[in-house]
Amino acid sequence: MLIPKKGKPWLLTDFRFALQAEEEAQGFTVELYKKGLYALLKKLLPTLNVRRLGFESHYFLHSSVGKLEEMAENIKVELVPLLGLVERMRVLKTEEEIKLIKKSVLLNEQIFQSVHKTLTPGMTEIDIALALEQTMRKMGAEEPSFETIVAFGTNAAKPHAVPTNRVLKNGEIVLIDMGLVLGGYCSDMTRTFVVGKPKKKFFQRLRVVRKAQLAGTKAIRAGAICRDVDQAARKVITDAGYGDFFGHSLGHGVGLAVHEAPGLGSRNRKKLRAGMIVTIEPGIYLPEWGGIRLENMAVVREDGCEVLNEDTTGLDL
Amino acid sequence: MLIPKKGKPWLLTDFRFALQAEEEAQGFTVELYKKGLYALLKKLLPTLNVRRLGFESHYFLHSSVGKLEEMAENIKVELVPLLGLVERMRVLKTEEEIKLIKKSVLLNEQIFQSVHKTLTPGMTEIDIALALEQTMRKMGAEEPSFETIVAFGTNAAKPHAVPTNRVLKNGEIVLIDMGLVLGGYCSDMTRTFVVGKPKKKFFQRLRVVRKAQLAGTKAIRAGAICRDVDQAARKVITDAGYGDFFGHSLGHGVGLAVHEAPGLGSRNRKKLRAGMIVTIEPGIYLPEWGGIRLENMAVVREDGCEVLNEDTTGLDL
Repeated sequence: MLIPKKGKPWLLTDFRFALQAEEEAQGFTVELYKKGLYALLKKLLPTLNVRRLGFESHYFLHSSVGKLEEMAENIKVELVPLLGLVERMRVLKTEEEIKLIKKSVLLNEQIFQSVHKTLTPGMTEIDIALALEQTMRKMGAEEPSFETIVAFGTNAAKPHAVPTNRVLKNGEIVLIDMGLVLGGYCSDMTRTFVVGKPKKKFFQRLRVVRKAQLAGTKAIRAGAICRDVDQAARKVITDAGYGDFFGHSLGHGVGLAVHEAPGLGSRNRKKLRAGMIVTIEPGIYLPEWGGIRLENMAVVREDGCEVLNEDTTGLDL
Repeated sequence: MLIPKKGKPWLLTDFRFALQAEEEAQGFTVELYKKGLYALLKKLLPTLNVRRLGFESHYFLHSSVGKLEEMAENIKVELVPLLGLVERMRVLKTEEEIKLIKKSVLLNEQIFQSVHKTLTPGMTEIDIALALEQTMRKMGAEEPSFETIVAFGTNAAKPHAVPTNRVLKNGEIVLIDMGLVLGGYCSDMTRTFVVGKPKKKFFQRLRVVRKAQLAGTKAIRAGAICRDVDQAARKVITDAGYGDFFGHSLGHGVGLAVHEAPGLGSRNRKKLRAGMIVTIEPGIYLPEWGGIRLENMAVVREDGCEVLNEDTTGLDL
């Protein structure tokens, strides 16, 4: 995508995407390259009178920038690496965007609930992940916003578990982390529960995670420092003796991408602002035992936050 | 992944992938970073006595190389950008690898055939794509090697069509481009056919594409120049008057990745070598009418090539 200061933006692509580009990129001048992107830019930039060209440093590969530099030098264009330009424009959501994200969250929950009630021992992690993704598409989602995680028992100790053919046993932990794209906007939710009769330890630990989530949620408001929000939740888990088993950050922004700014982690000293949307997803992961994670999404408001989730599976303690 | 000249290779990752890394990366020393990759490298490189550090220029983002440079300067390590180092090691397949790829191809065909015979008017592109991907996982594939393409009628005029809710009508073109990963190795196949009674034009054009595929296949042997193979197939399509409607290259390498070297395109002057595996996938795309693509995979041999596919749907003219 090439956006000159004046005039229509350009979409540069190749033959394979010609029809799709015409259909989807309304308002753009679509130009196809036959001899590669850099050859086309070399022709196009002088006609557009471009003297300085910014590019997204965190999307361009190092080797591609090499080619970009060669081309730019050739036609005496100054190259300017940019970091987070578009991300900064996206970090605050408008009320319209918040509505779209809420819709995405609610559809995601509806799908979770419809599959959740069919779960029985004997199913595999892959069976359930496929059922969830198939239901997403049937119920109108554009696609999953990331590869659906379904993890049983000790597999749930991997925060980014990949579904396997492991068969669900009665009384085992089930961790489901799922999201979808609707109207271009992402959702992301995690629930952890037991099919059958859970052991006492499960409730004990679930309660710790839920308390941590509530503490994190309570700490969110415009002006709060990201790492302080992480710390508010982390403290509950540390105080319960599980500090070493919650190794990831508390949450991340969600919008057009399922992971975007801001990060709710222990190294982020930036302040939250009203209109940001973040996940709140503390967890405890014990290799020999399993894992528990609970994840909701919330909008940052001036005086607090508004949780977008309505599903209460595992939250109602 | 960090590979010192001597001693065990290292896998550097974070908490979220700790268990998976231990399970999957046998023979590696797994080290987790808490304060980011660059902070860990800064500590680790001096203890390993690294003075020159190569990195994959076509996998590292421009912004990440910035951080890598800062770190390297700090500990006086020389940075060396590398291009295609691993790819060059992968381009020639061993006989063992060829067997694994053949297995992947045959499983892919089996899945295609089992879904192909269930196709009826009224199904949507998404229905069929989901059925294919679900069957892949049920029949033991690790995952699809790319997002399955199912395109009806005019949608088939997009070489990289995305499945939609379009409903299949009797007599309409169906283009299916699908692949899977089995034992780590990819397959990739395209078939185009009609459910119901095809129009005459369809067979006419299908025959052109198949003839182009045969011409390309015949041109493949060790020592043949990649662009000449592309040209051999392209000439058939151009001679039939469809030269402007075959805008992509004839094929690409396949192995651990579904797209790898060598590229069979009009700008590649390199020679094929025995043991390479390539796709041969000519196509004709007419926006108002639809598209046809046929894709097989073949191993380059000293005196010709060995087509890995056995399925004959649309090839038996």
